[in-house]
Amino acid sequence: MTEVRALAARAKVAAAETALLTRAAKDAALLAMADALEARAPEVLAANALDVERGTDLSAALVDRLRLTQERVVAMADGLRALAALPDPVGEVVRGSTLPNGLELRQVRVPLGVVGIIYEARPNVTVDAAGICLKSGNAVLLRGSSSAASSNAALVDILRSAASAAGLPADAVQLVPSDGHESVKELMRLRGLVDVLIPRGGAELIRSVVEESTVPVIETGVGNCHVYVDATADVDTAVAIVIDAKTTRPSVCNAAETLLVHEFVAGAFLPKVLAALALAGVTVHGDASVAAFGDVVPATEDDWYTEYLSLDLAAKVVHSMDEAVRHIRTYGSGHTEAIVTASQESARRFVANVDSAVVMVNASTRFTDGGEFGYGAEIGISTQKLHARGPMGLPELTSTKYVVVGDGQVRHPT
Amino acid sequence: MTEVRALAARAKVAAAETALLTRAAKDAALLAMADALEARAPEVLAANALDVERGTDLSAALVDRLRLTQERVVAMADGLRALAALPDPVGEVVRGSTLPNGLELRQVRVPLGVVGIIYEARPNVTVDAAGICLKSGNAVLLRGSSSAASSNAALVDILRSAASAAGLPADAVQLVPSDGHESVKELMRLRGLVDVLIPRGGAELIRSVVEESTVPVIETGVGNCHVYVDATADVDTAVAIVIDAKTTRPSVCNAAETLLVHEFVAGAFLPKVLAALALAGVTVHGDASVAAFGDVVPATEDDWYTEYLSLDLAAKVVHSMDEAVRHIRTYGSGHTEAIVTASQESARRFVANVDSAVVMVNASTRFTDGGEFGYGAEIGISTQKLHARGPMGLPELTSTKYVVVGDGQVRHPT
Repeated sequence: MTEVRALAARAKVAAAETALLTRAAKDAALLAMADALEARAPEVLAANALDVERGTDLSAALVDRLRLTQERVVAMADGLRALAALPDPVGEVVRGSTLPNGLELRQVRVPLGVVGIIYEARPNVTVDAAGICLKSGNAVLLRGSSSAASSNAALVDILRSAASAAGLPADAVQLVPSDGHESVKELMRLRGLVDVLIPRGGAELIRSVVEESTVPVIETGVGNCHVYVDATADVDTAVAIVIDAKTTRPSVCNAAETLLVHEFVAGAFLPKVLAALALAGVTVHGDASVAAFGDVVPATEDDWYTEYLSLDLAAKVVHSMDEAVRHIRTYGSGHTEAIVTASQESARRFVANVDSAVVMVNASTRFTDGGEFGYGAEIGISTQKLHARGPMGLPELTSTKYVVVGDGQVRHPT
Repeated sequence: MTEVRALAARAKVAAAETALLTRAAKDAALLAMADALEARAPEVLAANALDVERGTDLSAALVDRLRLTQERVVAMADGLRALAALPDPVGEVVRGSTLPNGLELRQVRVPLGVVGIIYEARPNVTVDAAGICLKSGNAVLLRGSSSAASSNAALVDILRSAASAAGLPADAVQLVPSDGHESVKELMRLRGLVDVLIPRGGAELIRSVVEESTVPVIETGVGNCHVYVDATADVDTAVAIVIDAKTTRPSVCNAAETLLVHEFVAGAFLPKVLAALALAGVTVHGDASVAAFGDVVPATEDDWYTEYLSLDLAAKVVHSMDEAVRHIRTYGSGHTEAIVTASQESARRFVANVDSAVVMVNASTRFTDGGEFGYGAEIGISTQKLHARGPMGLPELTSTKYVVVGDGQVRHPT
């Protein structure tokens, strides 16, 4: 048995235990884990310093994501405490009825079992994912990036001993070796031991997991998000939404990447938004019609497909809302699209025709977020249609089980 | 572009239309399809006669599944009428709230898009699947068995022209060529065009689709179902449940395949159940302890894994309920397991510890069925944990979309 398979086998045993834990037991463990993180923060920071030292080939942005501070450790601990305060999804009765023959039917939420998370640099994901999986009664296999190996090892050691001291199986939280791509490959073949894989990270990582895994996958996060400014849009509202959607955190998946503008509003809107974008340091990759209104880089076909994750924005003038919808259906990633409009009819048609996880009307794409939606915790944003779509909170980490109780019913009484 | 890819591309265009249909339009089409089936029954029967003629290498059981009669055609039509009477899952608001910033959040059911069904001999699946997919707003690609090729072609021709006459896109229902395994292979690579594949049929077919498909799959149907007779079970109730679960329709996935008996009740229960099973023509594959009570074929390790789908039953005496649960976790397929018990504590523990789609207490495994559950329609029984688990009705053929309506909200107001 390989090392990863052995980890998964232990996780499966642990999952059978965590599935039966009461909310009280899980919350106590989460609080103990939070306290342990704070108490042992110096260890975490020392391990993190090693990762940062080793990371001489990382970009400044990656180092910033990797680096932990006392404040960030406290924030991770507070995240666990917030999870403890959330309701337990396990045991919720989703549907139920008494059948004509007297059978009592209930469909009840149960944990998925063993959840594998594959992620990149940020060590806070280690703590968040462990907490969310535990709260939802699952065992978790954490496959972080090798650039955060020391930080993750320290964090998982602390989480495991705290969980164990609180009476939980330590193997409910396990770190998968991060050296090379082999451990990811192995995880993808563990159908029957691992119940779901959630890749979080770059488009390339996600694509390879989706294509190669025999374990069911929840696809997350690629966000080629669009803002469509309709003919009737209020210009100032549209400018504010575009600036918020593009500039407040360009590196995240709910940031806008393409702006589509109805030709009727182009003259009033484009000069204003181009000026505001320039002021915010955004490079606009525009088509010829956009270029007529300001300084832009000429857009190529590639731009319509690109998730820049930077201060770049593709922009195009369209002749109709239908053209905007077709553009989104052709180039979008099914994450989040927004329409800015004063027309009730446009809003209705846009919502009906755009096939994405989230459709915003007169609001920034940046609101697609488990926290903003009031879910209190988020393990990622699903861009697929099966199982979960959009921000995934605790219920999305559960399955269901039918429980049918009778007093001797048979289907064909003799 | 290959033929299958071209079919899928047309299905995707049709799906964008069917997603927007009102319930009234869909129901009218379903009723028109039902009427057309009855009106053109002679064509269907003639085509079916060709399939039956060609099927000289098929077993008698397969020919029975394949053969259509006037009565069976009417039953298919009535199935479509029953679908028309069911509520439309599309548009149902699953969750909703108004966020602190005034954004109105709704999570609404939407169709999945293009659904591919891969199935075996029975031509009635063609009509059922088309109806269920259409009612839930999806376009469907039907890949039936080559043994039913003429029947399926006639049925799909009738369904398409009736749908088309009722104003629906004909390409919402399309037949995929059934020659060889190539068309299945192609379907499995159409990620982005096909939203989900549902294989219905033998374990081998299902396994190969699950392992090879990059299109998301819902695994259905393999049912190695167990009946566990607890120490406190009422013996007559247990006998009635075992006989019902094993003998009323041995070829279906919710039939029992293994009987586990607590040693404390073995002496009172086994002689009775073995006599009743013998009378019903069942061959029991028993362990040594079972053999002490009657005439059995010695069970091998393989028997515990086997879904017989015939009048065969594996049987074993266990020392405890925990042993029964471990046996089920080791050899089961996660479909349906039943406990027969008078003990509330045993019932609770069995329900909590058995990790299957359906757990029955004092009821036959044969109740795992969309019709019996009151869902009115069933596209299969999922044995996986993601998206759907257990009998899948109309809501299981939908995804959701978040619709967020505001009046200019931005995440970081300036």
